[in-house]
Amino acid sequence: MKTRLPMILPVLALLAAERPVAGDEGMWMPQQIPDLAAKLRERGFEGDPAAFSDLTGQPMGAIVFLGGCTASFVSPEGLIATNHHCATGALQYNSTPRRNLLVDGFVAKSRDGEESNGPGARVYVTVSVKDVTEAMTGRIDTKLDDRRRFDVVDRRTKEKVAACEASGHRCAVTPFFGGLKYFEIAQLEIQDVRLVYAPPVGIGNFGGETDNWRWPRHTGDWSFFRAYVGSDGRLAAFSKDNVPYRPAHWLRVQPAGVKEGDLVFVVGYPGRTQRHQTYAEVKETTEWMFPRIVRTYQEQIAILEALGKTDEELQIKAASRLRNLNNYLTNRKGMLEGLLEGGVLGRKKESQEALAAWIAADPERQKEYADVLPALDALQAESERTRERDAALTSLFTASPLLDQAHTAHLLAVEKAKKNDLDREAEYQQRNWVRIRESFERAQRTVDPRIDRALLKWAVGYAAALPAEQRIGGLDRLVGLTPGMAEPDADKAIEQYLERLVSGTKMADREFRLSLLDKTAAEVAATKDPFVDLALALDPLHQQNREAQKRKAGGMARLRPRYMKALLASAGGLVAPDANATLRVTFGTVKGKAQAADGTAWTAFTTLKGIEQKHTGEGEFDAPDRQLEAIRELRGGKTTPYADPAIGDVPVDFLSTVDITGGNSGSPTLNGRGEFVGLAFDGTYDTIASDFLFDDVNTRSIHADVRYMLWVMTEVDGAAHIVHEMLDR
Amino acid sequence: MKTRLPMILPVLALLAAERPVAGDEGMWMPQQIPDLAAKLRERGFEGDPAAFSDLTGQPMGAIVFLGGCTASFVSPEGLIATNHHCATGALQYNSTPRRNLLVDGFVAKSRDGEESNGPGARVYVTVSVKDVTEAMTGRIDTKLDDRRRFDVVDRRTKEKVAACEASGHRCAVTPFFGGLKYFEIAQLEIQDVRLVYAPPVGIGNFGGETDNWRWPRHTGDWSFFRAYVGSDGRLAAFSKDNVPYRPAHWLRVQPAGVKEGDLVFVVGYPGRTQRHQTYAEVKETTEWMFPRIVRTYQEQIAILEALGKTDEELQIKAASRLRNLNNYLTNRKGMLEGLLEGGVLGRKKESQEALAAWIAADPERQKEYADVLPALDALQAESERTRERDAALTSLFTASPLLDQAHTAHLLAVEKAKKNDLDREAEYQQRNWVRIRESFERAQRTVDPRIDRALLKWAVGYAAALPAEQRIGGLDRLVGLTPGMAEPDADKAIEQYLERLVSGTKMADREFRLSLLDKTAAEVAATKDPFVDLALALDPLHQQNREAQKRKAGGMARLRPRYMKALLASAGGLVAPDANATLRVTFGTVKGKAQAADGTAWTAFTTLKGIEQKHTGEGEFDAPDRQLEAIRELRGGKTTPYADPAIGDVPVDFLSTVDITGGNSGSPTLNGRGEFVGLAFDGTYDTIASDFLFDDVNTRSIHADVRYMLWVMTEVDGAAHIVHEMLDR
Repeated sequence: MKTRLPMILPVLALLAAERPVAGDEGMWMPQQIPDLAAKLRERGFEGDPAAFSDLTGQPMGAIVFLGGCTASFVSPEGLIATNHHCATGALQYNSTPRRNLLVDGFVAKSRDGEESNGPGARVYVTVSVKDVTEAMTGRIDTKLDDRRRFDVVDRRTKEKVAACEASGHRCAVTPFFGGLKYFEIAQLEIQDVRLVYAPPVGIGNFGGETDNWRWPRHTGDWSFFRAYVGSDGRLAAFSKDNVPYRPAHWLRVQPAGVKEGDLVFVVGYPGRTQRHQTYAEVKETTEWMFPRIVRTYQEQIAILEALGKTDEELQIKAASRLRNLNNYLTNRKGMLEGLLEGGVLGRKKESQEALAAWIAADPERQKEYADVLPALDALQAESERTRERDAALTSLFTASPLLDQAHTAHLLAVEKAKKNDLDREAEYQQRNWVRIRESFERAQRTVDPRIDRALLKWAVGYAAALPAEQRIGGLDRLVGLTPGMAEPDADKAIEQYLERLVSGTKMADREFRLSLLDKTAAEVAATKDPFVDLALALDPLHQQNREAQKRKAGGMARLRPRYMKALLASAGGLVAPDANATLRVTFGTVKGKAQAADGTAWTAFTTLKGIEQKHTGEGEFDAPDRQLEAIRELRGGKTTPYADPAIGDVPVDFLSTVDITGGNSGSPTLNGRGEFVGLAFDGTYDTIASDFLFDDVNTRSIHADVRYMLWVMTEVDGAAHIVHEMLDR
Repeated sequence: MKTRLPMILPVLALLAAERPVAGDEGMWMPQQIPDLAAKLRERGFEGDPAAFSDLTGQPMGAIVFLGGCTASFVSPEGLIATNHHCATGALQYNSTPRRNLLVDGFVAKSRDGEESNGPGARVYVTVSVKDVTEAMTGRIDTKLDDRRRFDVVDRRTKEKVAACEASGHRCAVTPFFGGLKYFEIAQLEIQDVRLVYAPPVGIGNFGGETDNWRWPRHTGDWSFFRAYVGSDGRLAAFSKDNVPYRPAHWLRVQPAGVKEGDLVFVVGYPGRTQRHQTYAEVKETTEWMFPRIVRTYQEQIAILEALGKTDEELQIKAASRLRNLNNYLTNRKGMLEGLLEGGVLGRKKESQEALAAWIAADPERQKEYADVLPALDALQAESERTRERDAALTSLFTASPLLDQAHTAHLLAVEKAKKNDLDREAEYQQRNWVRIRESFERAQRTVDPRIDRALLKWAVGYAAALPAEQRIGGLDRLVGLTPGMAEPDADKAIEQYLERLVSGTKMADREFRLSLLDKTAAEVAATKDPFVDLALALDPLHQQNREAQKRKAGGMARLRPRYMKALLASAGGLVAPDANATLRVTFGTVKGKAQAADGTAWTAFTTLKGIEQKHTGEGEFDAPDRQLEAIRELRGGKTTPYADPAIGDVPVDFLSTVDITGGNSGSPTLNGRGEFVGLAFDGTYDTIASDFLFDDVNTRSIHADVRYMLWVMTEVDGAAHIVHEMLDR
């Protein structure tokens, strides 16, 4: 197992000395941290920066990935801390109409009481990162067209992944800097993950959507899981006989917390940033994609909320999806506002013109890069040609999980028929078959044709309104739609079609759905289930789009590394690659904000006092009675080690300048000694657009303070045994 | 004319050295300021503190009173600056359904265009303050009962006022420290006041009720009047031939404004504070009076708002009353919350117990004070006995201006019949006859029987629900109500009565109403106007209550000075008397707040940026187009002398620690050189309860920044000629 990673890209290393790194921008690859030693020392860091590049040491060995969220080991017995909003799925999976864990929270009083997070729940521990750039990009025939270039890269990726996974790890080959570099990442994959503790909604989601992405904040956004392995200590699927996993490293919890001005680190798996996109790409995002997303999310939220009001069962089934939609909606709105108000597009245009000028200024550069920008723009323009239709097609699948699963069953059957696993589309390779089955199983708790029907009505309505030159022919024929059809007529046809679809389907039946995964393509089609029919009607356009995407990806593989090389060379300085769901280290300072809304500033910490102030007893601001009582006891003179004498209260959440994004949710916040002092769980609204262009002055991350966690666990939630497990080491 | 005032009360002067004055508490009498010299020097004040005790010098000679608001001369030609919300009456008086100055604002382009503020508008300039304690309190027979004691004090007051007014001034004899001291105050009374300029509602009341009492604030709360006198330079009622008054003193405007940390003064006429009330008094306020007021204000606001929606004429007529009700409602709610949350009652109880202990600790004190607290409590208990009924009676008169005027006509006729002016009730003495007529005339613009009917329905409904032992007999008989009557029956009787009342009255007719003021009591009664009938039916209870109030006032005259003497002696330190609508000086620092709502702080200044952020184009957040354009021009590079380089924008409003209350509205804010740097116009919500117990940490006043005033006048409102009048001196 590789422990120390290769040094950063030579082109960057050369430039590192030229320009000082500004502010706290940077979701750094672990191996870049030693090069930031000077900056860290300036911030008062007394440890060894090299520790962050040792993925199997302290603290990096304790950081894990849950798929969409980050988490960390916080005890030698596999206890894992993450965000409450990362546990929504697990809470939902274990809820029933009579026992709504999403509302009431959950505390396992003993190991026996720890509940499975459901099939497909995973904990990933990154164990090695290997530079495979040469193997991935070397020796490619420059005369290959883009479509065939895609196949070369795709095949090489599959081959490397297969070789890596022979070791028993889960592997990925991931491009960095747009494919200028490739790294092969191997992860341990723990398959038995259980719910240990989550606070009730009045703590874990206190403030709800109103406070989401906002400061001042009083959300107790934490939950705890535990990793289990077979009794032989080896990785194993869920079994009653499994035993807690004993990680080599776990974080030490620092119950004294942090104070303003302290250096903090956040280590985790940030999902995606777009700081290195071209002007044309940001332009499409700003002017078309985000406005469309905001609109469609709002519409879907309204539909799901109305549906939830009719039936508590539907409400629970839609809860996780609704929370995600709301969260993304606020995020996308914030990004859009940030892009527009921050003039990001204008600044992007300027920087791209500067790059073009930099290229034009030197004959060598011209030779190397002159074709890149125009060619990238052409690729972008091509993909925008049929974007309305393509987005409508995607909306159909996202609107209806049952349609998506019917389609998945068909695609899987087609790919399974291929002899050689390397010939299969990546997502249908054998390594993913169990995952697909698990996702079908896990969906059972949220599946309801009434939800699919309501959202399909909306999605088909969009498709019905497409212009004549961008129709989804298969859908038109099946539903009986024509371009320019009067809306009432279209609505009537859609209603009649959806009635047939929903009344005729067996897709909500678990056995039927799972049985599709064992059928050949012909057998799938022969079920004649209306959702299968619809999937097959949509498949030709899906295939056509997929070919186009592969051509585009091949073009990107040809152009993007050169674009990035020019960009980095012209910019200078040590630069972190855009986030790509790989392990990153970021750091900053615990810090309020001198100018927030006009006339106001932010202090670095909130306290219990704010919970008393915000509590209304209703909706999103309904703190549990037990918590209010505990606060009264505190006000009455009861002592707690978790109050901050300087603040005169128990700190709840705090702000820092750390640079994070989606995927960092659940990341531990570490002090300068690598000790656990809280959980990152959000950023502030006005800096969401930092994903496109970092805002050095305004960017703030929001963390749950470890002292609030420990106080609630001890005084409110009856989870003192978990506190003991973390502190008694 | 007295210019330098006598030194402060000996009892206080003796104690001044014992305890340092804490924080910025204190609405100081001008003559107390020299004793605060050390504290002022500590704050960096370089002027002569004695200047503040010279009422006819600079700056005190420039400060004037408008009745409910403060104002100041800001040019040698009688230009007066005050708040926008102090001009509501004048704007309303000059509005018509087609020309709504409340919405559009007003700018007189020349002197000819300056409009009368209406009959009864006044500007008062305090010219002397004389200690008359001995004359008022000496030689009173200690065996007098409370009722006769009232008569003695009342007669002495009337005699002194009459003697003082022989000089042509308007005079008052006002108790300070609950009658421990009396001062005779003489004021110049300017009777021709005209509207010069008020910004549109989108500036002058930007943020409306939503922002009222709140920070961050962006209200441009100013307006300008001009004082006029006869062409011979003497005081005169409104006449076209009058000429601008030339004050001896006017404030110099400092266009550079202030910065955080600067010392500022506010000079004005704070109305009432209750910091020296007894526990029993604060208890009634907290537990009965304020909860009732909040409820009744809310109910009246709802009625007036509903009425305004039916008719634009009614809306204009009700506007001023509605704005006042809303403002008071927020104030009373804030006070009530502050009293409850701040535990004021508990602290008041403790301090009263401490006072009782202080008295009990010394035989001399016992002899002097032991009876005082129990006797004050007994007076309070007596006045609470019939408070439901008495409040219901008051509500009837406040609900209906027409009823109130019918009653006033009756009372005036009764008092006029008395030969000796000194025998008349104070408010019906000859000196007030013109005022009463003016108030009848001024009411014409707001009078509408539909409003009276709607609010009387509400007020009579209250009276109908009174318990059997607290009925208003005259009302019961007239309307046909009985105790315990079923609500629908009572409602029916009330509706029928109100129909008769409104259909039969001539009170909305100007001539009829004014004619009442010239009639004898018998002639008034003989009009048989239904409002007169109602007033006469209510009068017996009114007389009974008045007698009770006089008894109580006599008791207070006996007890309160001794209570205050004990309180001041036990407390120590230099203490400012409770506000009583006399001229006061307060000072503090331009300062934000390190802890506002949990997790937030306040900066000292807001800026134009906040207007851009808050502007929605609707309702209370609808900045004028011209203003938004001016902001765009500024952002586009246009320069202005009114931007603050340190802030990078034009400051809008600012916070200070100055101690003010209602009545200070319109007060000029002065820098350490006595220059005009803004207008005080509000306090922050969480410190409204400072009227009862000063909050040294949280109290903040809100000021309109002079730079915002000058910028709007120059760039937005077309009032540059007024800027020139102020600056070109």
